[in-house]
Amino acid sequence: MGSHMAQNLLKKGYQVIAYDLSTEAMKTIIEAGGQSASSPAEVASQTKQLVTMLPSSPHVMEVYTGTDGIFSTVQAGSLLIDSSTIDPAVSKDMAALADTHGANFMDAPVSGGVQAAKDGNLTFMVGGREAAYEEAVTLLSNMGKNVVHCGEVGTGETAKICNNMMLAIHMIGLSEATNLGVKLGMDPKLLAKVMNMSTGRSWSSEMYHPYPGIVETAPSNRNYEGGFGSALMAKDLGLAQNAATSTKCPTPLGSAAHQIYRLMCNSGYDKKDFSSAILFLQEKDTK
Amino acid sequence: MGSHMAQNLLKKGYQVIAYDLSTEAMKTIIEAGGQSASSPAEVASQTKQLVTMLPSSPHVMEVYTGTDGIFSTVQAGSLLIDSSTIDPAVSKDMAALADTHGANFMDAPVSGGVQAAKDGNLTFMVGGREAAYEEAVTLLSNMGKNVVHCGEVGTGETAKICNNMMLAIHMIGLSEATNLGVKLGMDPKLLAKVMNMSTGRSWSSEMYHPYPGIVETAPSNRNYEGGFGSALMAKDLGLAQNAATSTKCPTPLGSAAHQIYRLMCNSGYDKKDFSSAILFLQEKDTK
Amino acid sequence: MGSHMAQNLLKKGYQVIAYDLSTEAMKTIIEAGGQSASSPAEVASQTKQLVTMLPSSPHVMEVYTGTDGIFSTVQAGSLLIDSSTIDPAVSKDMAALADTHGANFMDAPVSGGVQAAKDGNLTFMVGGREAAYEEAVTLLSNMGKNVVHCGEVGTGETAKICNNMMLAIHMIGLSEATNLGVKLGMDPKLLAKVMNMSTGRSWSSEMYHPYPGIVETAPSNRNYEGGFGSALMAKDLGLAQNAATSTKCPTPLGSAAHQIYRLMCNSGYDKKDFSSAILFLQEKDTK
Amino acid sequence: MGSHMAQNLLKKGYQVIAYDLSTEAMKTIIEAGGQSASSPAEVASQTKQLVTMLPSSPHVMEVYTGTDGIFSTVQAGSLLIDSSTIDPAVSKDMAALADTHGANFMDAPVSGGVQAAKDGNLTFMVGGREAAYEEAVTLLSNMGKNVVHCGEVGTGETAKICNNMMLAIHMIGLSEATNLGVKLGMDPKLLAKVMNMSTGRSWSSEMYHPYPGIVETAPSNRNYEGGFGSALMAKDLGLAQNAATSTKCPTPLGSAAHQIYRLMCNSGYDKKDFSSAILFLQEKDTK
Repeated sequence: MGSHMAQNLLKKGYQVIAYDLSTEAMKTIIEAGGQSASSPAEVASQTKQLVTMLPSSPHVMEVYTGTDGIFSTVQAGSLLIDSSTIDPAVSKDMAALADTHGANFMDAPVSGGVQAAKDGNLTFMVGGREAAYEEAVTLLSNMGKNVVHCGEVGTGETAKICNNMMLAIHMIGLSEATNLGVKLGMDPKLLAKVMNMSTGRSWSSEMYHPYPGIVETAPSNRNYEGGFGSALMAKDLGLAQNAATSTKCPTPLGSAAHQIYRLMCNSGYDKKDFSSAILFLQEKDTK
Repeated sequence: MGSHMAQNLLKKGYQVIAYDLSTEAMKTIIEAGGQSASSPAEVASQTKQLVTMLPSSPHVMEVYTGTDGIFSTVQAGSLLIDSSTIDPAVSKDMAALADTHGANFMDAPVSGGVQAAKDGNLTFMVGGREAAYEEAVTLLSNMGKNVVHCGEVGTGETAKICNNMMLAIHMIGLSEATNLGVKLGMDPKLLAKVMNMSTGRSWSSEMYHPYPGIVETAPSNRNYEGGFGSALMAKDLGLAQNAATSTKCPTPLGSAAHQIYRLMCNSGYDKKDFSSAILFLQEKDTK
Repeated sequence: MGSHMAQNLLKKGYQVIAYDLSTEAMKTIIEAGGQSASSPAEVASQTKQLVTMLPSSPHVMEVYTGTDGIFSTVQAGSLLIDSSTIDPAVSKDMAALADTHGANFMDAPVSGGVQAAKDGNLTFMVGGREAAYEEAVTLLSNMGKNVVHCGEVGTGETAKICNNMMLAIHMIGLSEATNLGVKLGMDPKLLAKVMNMSTGRSWSSEMYHPYPGIVETAPSNRNYEGGFGSALMAKDLGLAQNAATSTKCPTPLGSAAHQIYRLMCNSGYDKKDFSSAILFLQEKDTK
Repeated sequence: MGSHMAQNLLKKGYQVIAYDLSTEAMKTIIEAGGQSASSPAEVASQTKQLVTMLPSSPHVMEVYTGTDGIFSTVQAGSLLIDSSTIDPAVSKDMAALADTHGANFMDAPVSGGVQAAKDGNLTFMVGGREAAYEEAVTLLSNMGKNVVHCGEVGTGETAKICNNMMLAIHMIGLSEATNLGVKLGMDPKLLAKVMNMSTGRSWSSEMYHPYPGIVETAPSNRNYEGGFGSALMAKDLGLAQNAATSTKCPTPLGSAAHQIYRLMCNSGYDKKDFSSAILFLQEKDTK
């Protein structure tokens, strides 16, 4: 993701100085006209606009607060945008630390996946101070088509994990209903049509149906390859559950969805698109 | 519901002969120009087009197969349309019995609620023979604006219970996500906006949001009065669960949703709109 | 089961007249000294003490109320004992019909499995009139070691499905806790020991532990072969769910357990002992 | 809890130097012959055997690693026993830090409740080095009757949260089964008797039945007052869920139980004994 985002910045004429553990990713950036740095600290010492894109909360903490981390060299007045999907509580911690260095930290997780990153079509959900938002929009607009201000720092992550919790619930529910309809003798295409003109419709039923042959562009038509993997969905649901536990907020279906994606990961669906829930719930030929 | 449907037929110039246990409902029909019958059998002896609208599977069995039931007098060539929301297996049983009398039975449950019944705006999901479908459409079009053929007998019920299972899952999930977002400091209106432009959207989030002040016409803005009661949703989810059990089809979220609506009924939400799930999941002031 | 029960009656000197769809089962009975009948009706015409053992509610209805069923020839004063595990509502229906013939129907499902049936060690949970109970005990004592009167007709089934719902919940919960403990680095034997001396113990943890090497006689030590199959557990949980739905009684964990056993049946665990839940929940090597 | 534990040490002739935020607790200790310290650091500077008993993971981190925390003054060779119920990962972190000071940290959460603390009847589940275990047993035996070594550091917590997850699942399941049995017309006492002689039994059904009138000493007979509060159970289930999420271990029933206790806390059962689940699941008179 990060590599595609950097390349879009380079295409728009920005100078980019990048750091990535992957030498392959670094090579791609350099070939596209970027410079390489040897650490997050080196990046932070050379620019006042930073964007981070990392797999999980501990990685973010390491890149910002570790030895050779961003905070070891960050310049006052810097804008620090983290596009990772992480625990909103960690975003708040990073923002508080940024304040002590006179920098502005914003959380700006994305929706849209690798293809949207490539095409510059990402949606950014941004949390952080109103004062820094305009500068953030200017920068992020080069990498995405939608930038939404969600409120104070952490709310970008909040919007992302709430949205993805809904998405997971919808996909499992739709898989259940479709399997049930088929078992009861109904044509799945017709069932989708009825739902989509009625009160059961969702983005999943209209744009990403898990049953093959209903939405042409959906991963269900290519053996659930590509798309958004079940392991990534399980991770996002884990973030939602952690947030729900720490705020003592009941989320019975979000929690059940989390368990189902965990079970799916344990059963070999981890790299399949998350719409493969429909297969997991069906009877398998185990003979 | 049945009374409104009959009145719409009368308005369109149909002769209507009606039977209802409720003397009030019967009075309304007679005042509107209908005739009264003393039993389902009497109705069936006088017309070859019948529409039934009943609360549950046992009522349907009684009205069709009981002493003084429809099958005791039904005429060959009759069209029997049942608009009740019931177990699709019962619809199939009734259709098989109708066949022995040379009559056509179709299941045609509705979506849209009491107001849509009044306004003639119901959607009918129809299961049954292609041959009888045209006659059914002609009749049902006087009471609704959409008539969808879902396949063989029972598929109308199947579409209805699958759709409502989705609806229940979406509403609970949306309630969870909204409560969680608010606990994490996000404005619920903004969260709804982000979801609705993203992958988490559903009919519930766009048209029937459970948080007050987001969708003007939603029951959440009138203390969850009116709308579709939690007890009715629990009933429909029970039908889905019975169908899932008899077809051995796993429906983990549908089943969890059923339990939640049952709990809500036990806790005083039975007559509140089903979007009051958001209240049930919130912290109550119990002091 | 039924065959073993009949053989125990023959051993105790009873005359037995039997009917079974399986010619193999009939052959066994005849070799053991029993007589064969050509239908349930023939049995009922020749004896006033009947015991039925059938797979599910529809079978029971057929054997009692069908053409050539028991009620077509039953003699006044007969004692009809049904040892099937079925819906308690069906037991009540059969009892009401038996009353119209002057016969006494009692539900008497068993616990203990095939081996206990062979050894005459079954436990019978009996529902039905106090007046007929003594006669029932005399008969059942030849086939089992415990006979418990649970109350009015239907309560035998109620006790059975409530007990088995608990058993399923305990087994899944214990599987979860054991998997979690192992993942966190704890020896499963030590974890079982701590639980069994503490508040987490159950019959499952003490007598039937799902992790191999803890309880010697448990199916977990023989690759989950034998024992009580997951498909049978799914069936009993389905009965519990039907009863819960018709009484509007919330059973969130019983319902979730039902879904998990259904998923297990779909994933190839249907004939494995129900303690194989621990495998289903673990990470599988899917490479 | 901590105060009762300290008093038992004083009774056995130990010198105790104590620190507690509660002035009342401190007063009790002083009256019983203990000394007071002004901070954890002061305690650690004066003794090489420390026991901590705190409400949650952040409190433990503060008391050990904060300014004036134990690690600021801890002496080489000290034995640090933490009896709090917390995240086992935090126990491991504390142990690693203790190592850098030449001290031994052990996790030793308790089961048994306030009364057992008073009576010196606690059970300690201890994780930590074999080498330090003997010294720990000598100390802990003054406060409890059972001390079990569960393995490496963190396994005491692991045993505790796995056990309590089982306990919560059993209690909810038993509440469901009892409510269902009663709805189906069965005497709850008789149902408990049948379960306890069969495969559905558990510590909860035998020792702590949630239905009044079955186990005399159970909180169900005193309006669910006293005992182990639902909020504390929700906390322990949250620890189990966090551990399950970080180890990617599916725990569908543990997770559902967590949600139910959260819902109960939101509905006013937070301070009631956790066996009040049976009330939460029943129909409430809401008129």
